[in-house]
Amino acid sequence: MKERAWHDLQGRMAELRDLGAIVGLLTWDQETYMPAGGGVDRARQLAALHSLLHERLIDPAVGDALAVLEGETDLGEARRAMVRNLRWERDRAIKVPSRLVRELATAQSEAVEGWRKARAEGRFALFAPHLTRLLALRREQADAIGHGGERYDALLDGFEPGMRVARLEPLFDQLRKELGPILQRLVEAAGPKRWEHERHSFPADRQWSYTLDLLADLGFDLERGRQDRSTHPFTSSAGRGDVRLTTRIAEDNLLSAVFGTIHEGGHGLYEQNLPAEHMLNPIGTAASMGLHESQSRLWENLIGRSLPFWQNQLPKLRTYFPEQLEGVGVQEVYAAVNRVSRSQIRVEADEVSYNLHILLRFQLELALLRDELPVDDLPGAWSDLAQELIGARPVDDRDGVLQDIHWAWGEFGYFPTYALGNLYSATIHEKLGQDLGDLDEVVRSGGLTQIRDWLAARIHHKGRLCDAEEIVLQATGTGLSCEPFLRYLRGKYSGLYDVAI
Amino acid sequence: MKERAWHDLQGRMAELRDLGAIVGLLTWDQETYMPAGGGVDRARQLAALHSLLHERLIDPAVGDALAVLEGETDLGEARRAMVRNLRWERDRAIKVPSRLVRELATAQSEAVEGWRKARAEGRFALFAPHLTRLLALRREQADAIGHGGERYDALLDGFEPGMRVARLEPLFDQLRKELGPILQRLVEAAGPKRWEHERHSFPADRQWSYTLDLLADLGFDLERGRQDRSTHPFTSSAGRGDVRLTTRIAEDNLLSAVFGTIHEGGHGLYEQNLPAEHMLNPIGTAASMGLHESQSRLWENLIGRSLPFWQNQLPKLRTYFPEQLEGVGVQEVYAAVNRVSRSQIRVEADEVSYNLHILLRFQLELALLRDELPVDDLPGAWSDLAQELIGARPVDDRDGVLQDIHWAWGEFGYFPTYALGNLYSATIHEKLGQDLGDLDEVVRSGGLTQIRDWLAARIHHKGRLCDAEEIVLQATGTGLSCEPFLRYLRGKYSGLYDVAI
Repeated sequence: MKERAWHDLQGRMAELRDLGAIVGLLTWDQETYMPAGGGVDRARQLAALHSLLHERLIDPAVGDALAVLEGETDLGEARRAMVRNLRWERDRAIKVPSRLVRELATAQSEAVEGWRKARAEGRFALFAPHLTRLLALRREQADAIGHGGERYDALLDGFEPGMRVARLEPLFDQLRKELGPILQRLVEAAGPKRWEHERHSFPADRQWSYTLDLLADLGFDLERGRQDRSTHPFTSSAGRGDVRLTTRIAEDNLLSAVFGTIHEGGHGLYEQNLPAEHMLNPIGTAASMGLHESQSRLWENLIGRSLPFWQNQLPKLRTYFPEQLEGVGVQEVYAAVNRVSRSQIRVEADEVSYNLHILLRFQLELALLRDELPVDDLPGAWSDLAQELIGARPVDDRDGVLQDIHWAWGEFGYFPTYALGNLYSATIHEKLGQDLGDLDEVVRSGGLTQIRDWLAARIHHKGRLCDAEEIVLQATGTGLSCEPFLRYLRGKYSGLYDVAI
Repeated sequence: MKERAWHDLQGRMAELRDLGAIVGLLTWDQETYMPAGGGVDRARQLAALHSLLHERLIDPAVGDALAVLEGETDLGEARRAMVRNLRWERDRAIKVPSRLVRELATAQSEAVEGWRKARAEGRFALFAPHLTRLLALRREQADAIGHGGERYDALLDGFEPGMRVARLEPLFDQLRKELGPILQRLVEAAGPKRWEHERHSFPADRQWSYTLDLLADLGFDLERGRQDRSTHPFTSSAGRGDVRLTTRIAEDNLLSAVFGTIHEGGHGLYEQNLPAEHMLNPIGTAASMGLHESQSRLWENLIGRSLPFWQNQLPKLRTYFPEQLEGVGVQEVYAAVNRVSRSQIRVEADEVSYNLHILLRFQLELALLRDELPVDDLPGAWSDLAQELIGARPVDDRDGVLQDIHWAWGEFGYFPTYALGNLYSATIHEKLGQDLGDLDEVVRSGGLTQIRDWLAARIHHKGRLCDAEEIVLQATGTGLSCEPFLRYLRGKYSGLYDVAI
């Protein structure tokens, strides 16, 4: 009975993974090569696949097989993890009526259009009805999935399995208390001389060649993946042998492509090093969005914005841009890529203020889902909170409440995973330093694949065998904590800005 | 009852079309952008989709809905065509056991690998066991589908609905009798002075720009489609707003890209002009492979290899390649693109010998499926028949029996559609000349979109409302016939070679 249930489930898990990979590929194509005329058909094709995935997941036969296997005591670690993950995914799917799934899909499409228009005109009012509708649907979804009184938990759990508001709040309170004063002192300090790279023009084809060179340095396997251009950089996977990154190239902004590539490269390395033997079951996926983000942020910030990284890369970068980089020293570049400011835009924020942007969003979406904040009051609440947390108000809604696409996608509960990623990345970075000896020297000498291999063995290969925090705990001896991140910030920025923080 | 059956069937037809479009996109991606490491996963993803398509098609509910609707007498033309097409497709699917579908898929993958290896080493023996296996499976499939004593008919019908061997044979006999002597006389004639374009180098980026320019001239809508590069040119559609062509660029062979682009452009125009209102049911597909091929061959040959076409295009082409085209006159180009020879390679064959290459393959695969020719004797039979039909033997198997990939794909019964395409293309061309007045003048003055519009209205918009021959008959007044094609050849080549044929 057990083996029959097992055999049946394996085929079903493989099909679910294949359909998921196909969704990924269609979405990638939509953002890269699809001609304008393909949009309507593509939306319908994706909806058909999502319906199919939902149908397969809620098939009673899956429930029967799971029930048989859950009754077994000798499944072994891997099979237990498969059953647990599939159960989690199925429970989330089966509790939500198909009607709600369809309504959400429609509302999301329309909201994205509404958001684009609202953003173009800088008028929140054009987006407000969409947001109201999406919030109503998400409240309904959260209540259908079930929660212990905190709706937000049901949504957060979809991105960060096991995470709860009650767990986040003390961490975020600590970040708020500590980061505000650090930001204050750094903004007041003069800071080192920076390279004003925006004054130059960097030909697109040379930027492109350099970013591919850089991906190879990180250990991203270009035989098992590729890079293309898109408006907004992202990573998508159609299998661990087919991982697709995108980047954006602006000729007046070299660093946009460089850090975009490193960031997506970090996501890509995770996808390329998921456990090969579990690619056809739910273990072969990232443990959480927070852990995924920890990989991109680790590479982008803790490695990519470090002095040894630029000591290693600047000579190579100079071969691509000899004129633009003439006379530019590594300290200038290091200062340029670590400029701290009270910026209004999350995606351009420095390491110090970034988490404050997340805290702002978390607090607002929590209030929205708790029915404590009417949608019409959102822009004002955003502005007040930006003043309170970051120390500056956005000049308009475009730079404020309309800046991110996430709420237009109907994603509430996603933002915290960025902050979790930052925290995990520092914890992992500290342990990397202990395990690899002189990490600065490893980076300075271009030994980035040593870092990749460590991450692959300790993080990536685990897939979803256990939850994100458990993986980090096993890898580093430390669970979720603000301390390593705060230590990292203090160590780096007190030196860079020559100020006590 | 009828409306309920209808409503149910509409959803199912739409899903089938969407899944089909997704298969097309995944295949396109496999041949264009997929990294090497994605191959294994992609094969499995495609197999999963094919299984799913098969499962949906043979769903008893589809049979029930069809049965209800087939009992109705007042369905109207479009609904009758939908029911007829879906019944045809479903009957072909349901008669073939799932086991055989899977075995065929595996055998095809392995045969393609075997063929590549055999071709690289020039050893047919490496491919023979694969071919034997595929033939056995196709015989089984043909017998499962059913036929009136001629197995080949069951396979041919899959590419050219309604076509039968008994219908092809007299046409092909006539072609054989007429084309041999024409080829003989043209090969013996000196022919006009040709432009030896292979002596020049044509930069890839300029070829690329020109081919895009050319597609726009043909009336291919680049907002509803795109062109990319691949090893072998092909056309794929993910919807009439997302039609994808590929071409190949060789710097030492300008004409390869030019005619590849025109050919695929012809296929692409068909896909872009299928009936919009039927894209979510089986009417919104090409009526047959032969009719599809008639569109590509019409544009490539009857338009693209005509004198007025080059009178129109040469000045523009000269702006892309001023040095390479210095002193080259339109008559030289016209002669170069219409050189007749006893070539061994089908895809490089001229208009006169092309059909002889098809006759050769048709005769051999018919003998194979009738168990009249052992696989081991195939290379010898090929060589003898090449001598008999084309007047020359291949120097080795690479240029002979191993030159095409079709048999490695397990496609027997496909080749005749190329010849049917040639015949239909001439029939359509003749009628075009009658309807558009001075066709030469239309082409010379660059009015190619007039041709596109005529084809769209008379051929493309029909989709699968009726079968290919009926569409051509309605459009031109002539059904399947060799006469227009032979008239076209005689008219063109007697002038070009100044010889009576």
